[in-house]
Amino acid sequence: MSLRYAKRMDNIKASEIRELLKLTQKPEIISFAGGLPAPELFPVEELEKVSSKVLEEQGTTALQYGPTEGYEPLRVEITKRMEKVGVECKPEDILVTSGSQQGLDFSGKIFLNPGDIVLCESPSYLGAINAFKAYEPEFIGVPTDENGMIMEELEDILKNNDRVRFIYVIPDFQNPSGRTWSIERRKRLIELANEHNVAIIEDNPYGELRFEGEYYPAIKHYDTEGRVIFLGTFSKIFCPGLRLGWVCAEEEVLNKFVLAKQGSDLQSSTISQMQVAKFLEEYDIEAHIENLKKVYKKRRDLMINTMKEEFPEEIKFTNPEGGLFTWVVLPEYMNARDLAVKAIEKNVAFVPGGSFFPNGGNENTLRLNYSSMDDEKIVIGIKRLAEAIKSMMKESQKA
Amino acid sequence: MSLRYAKRMDNIKASEIRELLKLTQKPEIISFAGGLPAPELFPVEELEKVSSKVLEEQGTTALQYGPTEGYEPLRVEITKRMEKVGVECKPEDILVTSGSQQGLDFSGKIFLNPGDIVLCESPSYLGAINAFKAYEPEFIGVPTDENGMIMEELEDILKNNDRVRFIYVIPDFQNPSGRTWSIERRKRLIELANEHNVAIIEDNPYGELRFEGEYYPAIKHYDTEGRVIFLGTFSKIFCPGLRLGWVCAEEEVLNKFVLAKQGSDLQSSTISQMQVAKFLEEYDIEAHIENLKKVYKKRRDLMINTMKEEFPEEIKFTNPEGGLFTWVVLPEYMNARDLAVKAIEKNVAFVPGGSFFPNGGNENTLRLNYSSMDDEKIVIGIKRLAEAIKSMMKESQKA
Repeated sequence: MSLRYAKRMDNIKASEIRELLKLTQKPEIISFAGGLPAPELFPVEELEKVSSKVLEEQGTTALQYGPTEGYEPLRVEITKRMEKVGVECKPEDILVTSGSQQGLDFSGKIFLNPGDIVLCESPSYLGAINAFKAYEPEFIGVPTDENGMIMEELEDILKNNDRVRFIYVIPDFQNPSGRTWSIERRKRLIELANEHNVAIIEDNPYGELRFEGEYYPAIKHYDTEGRVIFLGTFSKIFCPGLRLGWVCAEEEVLNKFVLAKQGSDLQSSTISQMQVAKFLEEYDIEAHIENLKKVYKKRRDLMINTMKEEFPEEIKFTNPEGGLFTWVVLPEYMNARDLAVKAIEKNVAFVPGGSFFPNGGNENTLRLNYSSMDDEKIVIGIKRLAEAIKSMMKESQKA
Repeated sequence: MSLRYAKRMDNIKASEIRELLKLTQKPEIISFAGGLPAPELFPVEELEKVSSKVLEEQGTTALQYGPTEGYEPLRVEITKRMEKVGVECKPEDILVTSGSQQGLDFSGKIFLNPGDIVLCESPSYLGAINAFKAYEPEFIGVPTDENGMIMEELEDILKNNDRVRFIYVIPDFQNPSGRTWSIERRKRLIELANEHNVAIIEDNPYGELRFEGEYYPAIKHYDTEGRVIFLGTFSKIFCPGLRLGWVCAEEEVLNKFVLAKQGSDLQSSTISQMQVAKFLEEYDIEAHIENLKKVYKKRRDLMINTMKEEFPEEIKFTNPEGGLFTWVVLPEYMNARDLAVKAIEKNVAFVPGGSFFPNGGNENTLRLNYSSMDDEKIVIGIKRLAEAIKSMMKESQKA
């Protein structure tokens, strides 16, 4: 017996990262592979308190169906988060989603016919590419440098492709590269999107986790025609286990997202939304974020400094100003997938970078996460990784 | 500015029920419109206790990312629920979803190319039709009688349409009709599906809420080739606010659902899954379900008996053996949408039945929910509805 599946299923592969994460759940593994926030910083006690309060005060509401758009007090709280990235909006501009991943799926559902083109940074977030693939688009990876997408390249691509439906970007501490877009590029992106009538999907899970320097306004801050769809999440500033994120967009576009939500799962968890709203009302999320930043900054410094000390000179890596990831570029003759096998033998895991390129190639790159391992593990893990790199280099020279 | 949306968005309309529910949230309205479980029966205190326990004992795990497939102890508990409907399965056959609505969306995503055909009962669940519409199928509503789909009609349709990808059915206490499939029809459905190599989506949110008579085995119980995909949910036996449901299917098919889940929202809420698993371990869900059945049976009896007393003889309605709904058929010259306007004036709400027919028509039908209103409101509401019906009949006779 073999059932007949939709054509789109030929495109959808298991996420290499999620599969890798399964392999690396042994406790002896030092994992730089996932994008996990540090669990020891989760506000567990506070959540227990608000959880009890919500159930005591509004138990039956918390366990009942609620509106598709989301729990009103949480939508109000989300407008405050949007303010922090320079976006003024009303609660009606917010749809609560099950993580920002759901916003990615809906973006594909709403905008993409088969054969339409998605532009994204090269490299880009694997989970987004996988979500969009279900809607059978083609991908063009736009070359990037340390200031984000290269605007001349983007302009060229837009001029030569009239089936571009949206440009997908992660402007702050990008996953996987750790890079941040300059303000000039943000403004220019809006001009080009206006000119070519395409939407922009701005995915911003890490924007509030800036360790140094000044906050840049979100791309949506510069939006003049309501064509930027902003995806936010509580996963990185609060915790991912509750699965709560949001879409912020103008009325016409947001209505489409609400329709997608209705068909997909009716609504996000009523009780989780009430818990997070209550937490934001009763506790100081800004202080919590400050603490996250302090810890993550220290871990980043430790990882970067250990890499500087231990890695051979030919190995390049980014020094992100925030977020969870740094990006390593090996010499071109090296393959990060082979390195990953060697590293796993030494009980160290990371994600090879090739998967982050929608059109393939770049097998000499890899992504390292520094948020989820403690100081000692970061040092040991990077030292082991350095050994693996050096031994691979030696083998290549012999061959 | 107008962005260009995917063609599929032309098909997707706001659910009439969800829109209606918004209008009927005024406290003075007696609503038979939604499909809401009785909130006063939610196990609020028990949930508060398990919630605290989960956070105290495994707080960091509960708030962290978890596996796409679902929390293992919950998958084990779900196999016990499947046993109750006569399906033996392993935890690996279960994917935890965000309500069974998400299983419907994934069914469309996995099986449907544009123009493929979905067969469903006529009438059928509006939320399923809306979910499938995103994948641009055509619908054929198969005629039904008091024992489910009429098998001769189904066979004819299968013989004459080679693009049928799946048959969508709600065999127990169907939404909206309240009807239950006979065992003979269940068996015959499997034979026909095998013969024509189509999948069956068995949506079973109410199966455990049988007030009288014996349980029928799920259609999946009779599945000989692994072509039945069973969708279950905790919404009706526990509470809907947590948004937890499941898919039970054979390995090959379930893998496709897991891929869909990964792209759509990575996973369902870790903490909610742990809470429900803990509840099922520590409390007696069977006793809870017995209590639900007792209350709902009483409300059904009250609604049916009041309708018998108050409605004119020409009005027909089903007497469901379980679930949440009864189905009313007015004389053909009457329109239930007009009646709904009249009823709302009397502060009574219901859902006109026309929307439940994928190919339209049947405007003289309506759906009544008896689970969410207390005894007094049921009697008052039905009396008011009877008045509205009688006054509309009089007007028609005059005209």
